[in-house]
Amino acid sequence: MTRWLVAVLAALSLASFGAQAQDREPVERWGSKEITLAGPADGNPFMEVELSATFSQGAHKITVDGFYDGEGQYKLRFMPDTVGDWEYETASNRPALHGKRGQFMVVAPSAGNHGPVRVHNTWHFGYEDGTPFRQVGTTSYGWTHQPEALQQQTLRTLAAGPFNKVRMLVFPNQDVKHMPPRFPFEGRAPKQWDFTRFNPAFFRHLEQRVGDLRKLGIEADVILFHPYDKGYWGFDSMPAEVNERYLRYVVARLAAYRNVWWSMANEFDYLKEKQMHEWDRYFEIVQARDPYQHLRSIHNAMVLYNHTKPWVTHVSVQSGAIAEDFERAVLFRDVYMKPVVYDEVKYEGNIERRWGQLSAQEMVLRFWQGAIAGTYVGHSEIFKDPNDLSWLGKGGTLRGQSPPRLAFFRQILADSPPDGLEPIDKWQGHPFAGKHAQYYLGYFGRAAPASWPFALRKPGLADGMKFRAEVIDTWNMTVTPVDGVFEIRKRDNYSFADKDGRSIALPGRPYIALRIVRVP
Amino acid sequence: MTRWLVAVLAALSLASFGAQAQDREPVERWGSKEITLAGPADGNPFMEVELSATFSQGAHKITVDGFYDGEGQYKLRFMPDTVGDWEYETASNRPALHGKRGQFMVVAPSAGNHGPVRVHNTWHFGYEDGTPFRQVGTTSYGWTHQPEALQQQTLRTLAAGPFNKVRMLVFPNQDVKHMPPRFPFEGRAPKQWDFTRFNPAFFRHLEQRVGDLRKLGIEADVILFHPYDKGYWGFDSMPAEVNERYLRYVVARLAAYRNVWWSMANEFDYLKEKQMHEWDRYFEIVQARDPYQHLRSIHNAMVLYNHTKPWVTHVSVQSGAIAEDFERAVLFRDVYMKPVVYDEVKYEGNIERRWGQLSAQEMVLRFWQGAIAGTYVGHSEIFKDPNDLSWLGKGGTLRGQSPPRLAFFRQILADSPPDGLEPIDKWQGHPFAGKHAQYYLGYFGRAAPASWPFALRKPGLADGMKFRAEVIDTWNMTVTPVDGVFEIRKRDNYSFADKDGRSIALPGRPYIALRIVRVP
Repeated sequence: MTRWLVAVLAALSLASFGAQAQDREPVERWGSKEITLAGPADGNPFMEVELSATFSQGAHKITVDGFYDGEGQYKLRFMPDTVGDWEYETASNRPALHGKRGQFMVVAPSAGNHGPVRVHNTWHFGYEDGTPFRQVGTTSYGWTHQPEALQQQTLRTLAAGPFNKVRMLVFPNQDVKHMPPRFPFEGRAPKQWDFTRFNPAFFRHLEQRVGDLRKLGIEADVILFHPYDKGYWGFDSMPAEVNERYLRYVVARLAAYRNVWWSMANEFDYLKEKQMHEWDRYFEIVQARDPYQHLRSIHNAMVLYNHTKPWVTHVSVQSGAIAEDFERAVLFRDVYMKPVVYDEVKYEGNIERRWGQLSAQEMVLRFWQGAIAGTYVGHSEIFKDPNDLSWLGKGGTLRGQSPPRLAFFRQILADSPPDGLEPIDKWQGHPFAGKHAQYYLGYFGRAAPASWPFALRKPGLADGMKFRAEVIDTWNMTVTPVDGVFEIRKRDNYSFADKDGRSIALPGRPYIALRIVRVP
Repeated sequence: MTRWLVAVLAALSLASFGAQAQDREPVERWGSKEITLAGPADGNPFMEVELSATFSQGAHKITVDGFYDGEGQYKLRFMPDTVGDWEYETASNRPALHGKRGQFMVVAPSAGNHGPVRVHNTWHFGYEDGTPFRQVGTTSYGWTHQPEALQQQTLRTLAAGPFNKVRMLVFPNQDVKHMPPRFPFEGRAPKQWDFTRFNPAFFRHLEQRVGDLRKLGIEADVILFHPYDKGYWGFDSMPAEVNERYLRYVVARLAAYRNVWWSMANEFDYLKEKQMHEWDRYFEIVQARDPYQHLRSIHNAMVLYNHTKPWVTHVSVQSGAIAEDFERAVLFRDVYMKPVVYDEVKYEGNIERRWGQLSAQEMVLRFWQGAIAGTYVGHSEIFKDPNDLSWLGKGGTLRGQSPPRLAFFRQILADSPPDGLEPIDKWQGHPFAGKHAQYYLGYFGRAAPASWPFALRKPGLADGMKFRAEVIDTWNMTVTPVDGVFEIRKRDNYSFADKDGRSIALPGRPYIALRIVRVP
């Protein structure tokens, strides 16, 4: 077919559809295509108007829910997962919104756009384009509900910091001193809400922040429910049908942001009114309505959700002690056979509460122990402050000493095998993870050994293999190569050791790691 | 109604049923009522004859499967759960076995008969009569497949030992030196079996041993499949329909023994041919066919079964490191919300393999750490032996040093609260379990503190409460009362301490426990 003929057929095709629109602006793969339609503003559009669109590229079809954005404006957002020509057609129970068609072009992603994060190699994460994602998370629950200047400061802190994921609340938490500037429903604070009418400005603001994080290459772990309302605004105790409508609305608005993760709740078990079957139902709604199947989990206080349920893509856990020790941390990997993120392991800080008293050393130790277990850890911090300003609650700046060490840690991970760190020998007090016969990362934690006899566990090894080693001071952030090459010989039924019986000298300080890499 | 009239009506009732039999011998509650019927011996009764009976006491009805016991004999076994008059009626596809009726009397249980063990208080066990069951288990896989004298020695060892549960294989394991005296199917060893014909003598022998354990007050954790056959006899790789028939047969024969627990498999994941859906199906069969709902679990090697599945009544786990530390051990409680038994935590012994090298001290430590976590642990031992004789494999005598300490441990548990030891403060390095404001059991493990400042965690406490304390040396098996009474005052947001700031002097040795009990 000549180019001329293609052009003619395309023109005929356009003409034959009449209502079809050709968008000039191409959208990038895993970017967001937004379509705005004018429609009815009378009655209650949130309750009465149904709108969806099917986007297609040949037989590849994705149906997305639209949403009412106020003032007679309806929107549909779409995150294309392939390049090339796409077309769409809307469906609605309102003629003004029904049967609208259009075409647009999807181009290759721009630098830094690797697509959404997916589960990779059972226990790990990777972006959809295959780039590994090594979760180094933080939490700032209410940062989007603060004054604009503080939000901008938070974004600057995140841009300069080590974190590639931030956990954040959709709903404001109770804060009697500062009234949040926006609320998710129409009505009057503290709790005279019309739960049948969303406040689009609230969600536009949330989207802007999620989009800001997307630009920074940071995943937004969006917490859909939380108990910190304590009945003050009442968003913690809405009727089930409101919760369901809210979930559909927030998914329709946010799913096209590639950096979204869904956290069904923070400390779900402190939302005492909600029964387990309700959580299951809410998961099913998000699973059904999200065309892109963003990662889904739920965070606990004292009671664990059953993360073996099929809609849970990865494990998000609060546990005060589990990441202190790689032999603890590995246990949840074995249980769940999914990526495990210890999102809350107590926080760096100096407050009276036991969950906010970790030293920076202990905060960093948990990231390393988690990594040696083949799992992932989350940071936050809370220091005494006359204005109750904390990174954990509101964002702003970081005062703790762990973030530079977490940046260093993240760099070490970036240089590790792409399929993720796997525990080498999990029941034997052996603090190594990596990939058999290729890469070993060891971590001695609070112990301060003066040397380490060079010996590796058997799987994959053979006499004569050679390795180089580096001593890593995880606190002082140094990597020191060890002189020479270690050649191994079988030692016993479980291990191979340096053929000359050599050891590696260690500094006799805590928080020391070893990196051992095979050489030809 | 006069007694005379009752007697007449009973006589008429008997007369009207014709085939009805009145058994003279009463059976005790949770004992076994066995009914033997003569039936066809032609064809293949195992495959062709269906037999069941419904036992009833008014509206309370229990249907049990019968089984063919060879030589034209059919049996039905029933474990009554209430005292009083019971009657039964058989159903069969063979007239000689159909419609047989009878009555018998069930009397109160004899001393030591507390009924089957059930889940109690979510994470614990209790006999059906309400008596607590504190699991102190051991494993002797092949003891029933040994020469009779050795089996008798094993029974004497168990009778004198600390254990109230023993894990044991139904099928023999591979043992090329000693041919087992009996096999579960007709045919010829090593693997010319007629899988359509069970060998009743094999199962009668197994039942005799389960009955022997019942007399000793020991639970039989009956392992239905295992991988130690390694294809030698072929019982590890029978067709699915044979597995299913086998499960129905073994349940029909053994379920009326109150001391039976079902372990679907040992190291199930080493039975590489069986898929996960098969294990689920086998659980469903046992769940459906067992009228008494004996405890059910499954034991792993490197891959955990999903113990959140509804047919799993309690968690049976192999883990080499989980019971070294109460903060590890507690994690599976949180995950599964069922009783957790760490049935295999490595074994006391001196062999080359890492799983058989625990010192007695380490073996005992795991029981204590497990208890402080609100969980249960299992013992076994394997010492080098010229004849490959080990308690783990074959039974006989115990050579290790842990059993007397486990007897001491069991006595400590026997004196603890009936609803089970509950962790007091699980994420704070606080090695205490018990019942708030009533009973605290602490354990310092390998640490050897010289004193312990008297302080208890807040829940349930109030100023002025008084406690007595005892220092327990878990290795030397001594209980030493601490002088005086400790009266508490609130100290901070988390704890109450002795009002005079006193500490308890400790011996500065490892393996020390503390028992603190409220006094009026």
